[in-house]
Amino acid sequence: MAVNLVAPKSLMPVKGVRLASLEAGIRYKDRDDLTLIELAEGSSVAGVFTKNAFCAAPVTVCRQHIARAEEFEESIRYLVINAGNANAGTGEEGMTSAQMICAEVAEEGCCSLHSVLPFSTGVIGEQLPYWKIVDQVENLVDQLDSDNWMKAAIAIMTTDTILKGISKSLKVNGKMVTITGMAKGAGMIEPNMATLLAYVAIDAGISQTELQSILDDAVVGSFNSITVDGDTSTNDSLILMATGKSGVDLEGENREEIVGLINEVLQELAQSIIRDAEGATKFVTIKVEAAPDYAYAKEIAYTVARSPLVKTALFASDPNWGRLLMAIGKSPVKDLDVSKLSLWLGDTQLLEAGEPLETYQEAQGQIEMDKDEITIRIQLNAGDAQAVVWTSDLSHEYVTINAEYRS
Amino acid sequence: MAVNLVAPKSLMPVKGVRLASLEAGIRYKDRDDLTLIELAEGSSVAGVFTKNAFCAAPVTVCRQHIARAEEFEESIRYLVINAGNANAGTGEEGMTSAQMICAEVAEEGCCSLHSVLPFSTGVIGEQLPYWKIVDQVENLVDQLDSDNWMKAAIAIMTTDTILKGISKSLKVNGKMVTITGMAKGAGMIEPNMATLLAYVAIDAGISQTELQSILDDAVVGSFNSITVDGDTSTNDSLILMATGKSGVDLEGENREEIVGLINEVLQELAQSIIRDAEGATKFVTIKVEAAPDYAYAKEIAYTVARSPLVKTALFASDPNWGRLLMAIGKSPVKDLDVSKLSLWLGDTQLLEAGEPLETYQEAQGQIEMDKDEITIRIQLNAGDAQAVVWTSDLSHEYVTINAEYRS
Repeated sequence: MAVNLVAPKSLMPVKGVRLASLEAGIRYKDRDDLTLIELAEGSSVAGVFTKNAFCAAPVTVCRQHIARAEEFEESIRYLVINAGNANAGTGEEGMTSAQMICAEVAEEGCCSLHSVLPFSTGVIGEQLPYWKIVDQVENLVDQLDSDNWMKAAIAIMTTDTILKGISKSLKVNGKMVTITGMAKGAGMIEPNMATLLAYVAIDAGISQTELQSILDDAVVGSFNSITVDGDTSTNDSLILMATGKSGVDLEGENREEIVGLINEVLQELAQSIIRDAEGATKFVTIKVEAAPDYAYAKEIAYTVARSPLVKTALFASDPNWGRLLMAIGKSPVKDLDVSKLSLWLGDTQLLEAGEPLETYQEAQGQIEMDKDEITIRIQLNAGDAQAVVWTSDLSHEYVTINAEYRS
Repeated sequence: MAVNLVAPKSLMPVKGVRLASLEAGIRYKDRDDLTLIELAEGSSVAGVFTKNAFCAAPVTVCRQHIARAEEFEESIRYLVINAGNANAGTGEEGMTSAQMICAEVAEEGCCSLHSVLPFSTGVIGEQLPYWKIVDQVENLVDQLDSDNWMKAAIAIMTTDTILKGISKSLKVNGKMVTITGMAKGAGMIEPNMATLLAYVAIDAGISQTELQSILDDAVVGSFNSITVDGDTSTNDSLILMATGKSGVDLEGENREEIVGLINEVLQELAQSIIRDAEGATKFVTIKVEAAPDYAYAKEIAYTVARSPLVKTALFASDPNWGRLLMAIGKSPVKDLDVSKLSLWLGDTQLLEAGEPLETYQEAQGQIEMDKDEITIRIQLNAGDAQAVVWTSDLSHEYVTINAEYRS
């Protein structure tokens, strides 16, 4: 049911990265649910995580280990990811589980416990059966292979209907730089840092400090510009890894090209989350233009994107633009002057300076709403800033998924 | 499908108030959709209205007329209410329509145009066929009767499944004071002042300034403490009227009793909106206790109440308390210390000082979730303030109503 999203046929290996996935039986049956990613010595790792106050135990551990890696100039060497259980709302016992897993990976991988990052996704509020993971670490290490990105992208899925991954490469000074990313997530999506589990690796050489700064910038217009249901997960984690094994470093003229490549991959990955949003039948782009500043524009875009009444109208392909006005008008921004506001559905203008356009015919709006990719453009005529947010519609399928299954 | 809500068998007349309703054919067929309320000379009227920036034309007119009545110590004499068309997003033409209606009522009722308040509810973004209303004003005036509250409560409904009204009376110094209120609204409900159309009349004597202050206080814990879908209507209007015809004035010891009566009626009316919320199968009370201040407590209560994932779990009667943690944790409040937080579902405790209770059994949670009246209690242990919000669940029926019908 994903909107104009097909799984990639393959994902390119990234020099310095090996992966393995297998079935640990944490919650799902007859499918892989456990993944290990190994990074070459000397790689840099940057991360952004959920701002939910009830963040999961592995998120707390990841934050500590990445901070330590930066302070002591150590390398992160392993990422271990399970699907089916979020290890969130699990108190002290959950912290112990996450640390037991790190300890086991450290022993098998011959590295420090602080060089391992743990990740969990799935049901909140149940203790993680960590021993099922610990038991499989040796097998995981044995199966590590640079060609396993597709397998891993499948193993991290929960309510996703399709695997999400993207690879790109770029020739820099005669050398090939490759970037591959994968992500999972379909509901509980309004990242307040990043969406539930995305991993992007590039074989360019980038210092950890610089990598974190690139990631902090890139996340604003990608994973922090999407929403499915306005619900921010306890486990959101986005990890950017740079191995340096392509022989190309981030310097001089390369900089712009490589940062551009990273931005492109993050934005496409974020959009793929929305294309496969729970119950989605539409991919909706909400653009707010000519606003006083970026935050102002984004607040309005998000308010429209979150509105259940706008989302059900989108599901129904109903050109009910009154609901758009309602949602714009309820945005918690200061001094919104609706008498300056113009509004478009696709290329069809509905409002000019706050007044309904007399030439507008409902049939025109219907044509736009019947599409599966819909753009809503809101022009405030109150400044130079703009923001874009991507969202999905609210369908029966969304209610079914979230009422009938426990996530 | 309303949750534990039955229509009142009758509503008591309020001295000094007469009403009439009839069929004007604005949108609906074979039902009353137009109502006129007449107030005795010398009555006071207070109102609170939507804060949506795209507020409807009648809301703008109401604000002006009430301000003028206060400034010049004039009386509001008539309220005219249509269902089926919101007269919102209708620009200058919508303003003219609202004024044409006021002018006609003023002529038939022999009063100033500024003594008439217009109200509209229904589809946003379509011009109001004001002539259908103007044509019926003479008939409305002919049919005015103090016994028409039930008829009026039905005529103002849109997607409501049940009429909402309440009457109470109180003996003060040997004289009977009567208060009757009616409200409509089932979706697009998260009043940022008041919900879409509620009218409450009391025959005590209260000055307009005092009445407005009583209303401003009472609305905080009633209509401003409910949410169906987090969407704030363009037309929300709550009107409190005091005729003084009981011979009892607001003074001395009476004050507390009469204000208490008004508060009680507003709170019950607000709750009746939630009981009849679009697609509702549950009536949910969210209490946040021991918070630093009221706004802090209410922000958390509203964040939980709005969460689509919490609402679908409620619909499914799924004791998935992980989603409660998620929603509490994503609340936009500062310095939420989850390690102090305790959580109850009904009488069953789930969390103590941030740690899951070991004695908790899912069967206990299931018993609570199977009820149609559910209380979620969140104790922050961070202060003395508390707030309560009432909400409904998110069901297939909600999606059906809002995807299949245009509101």
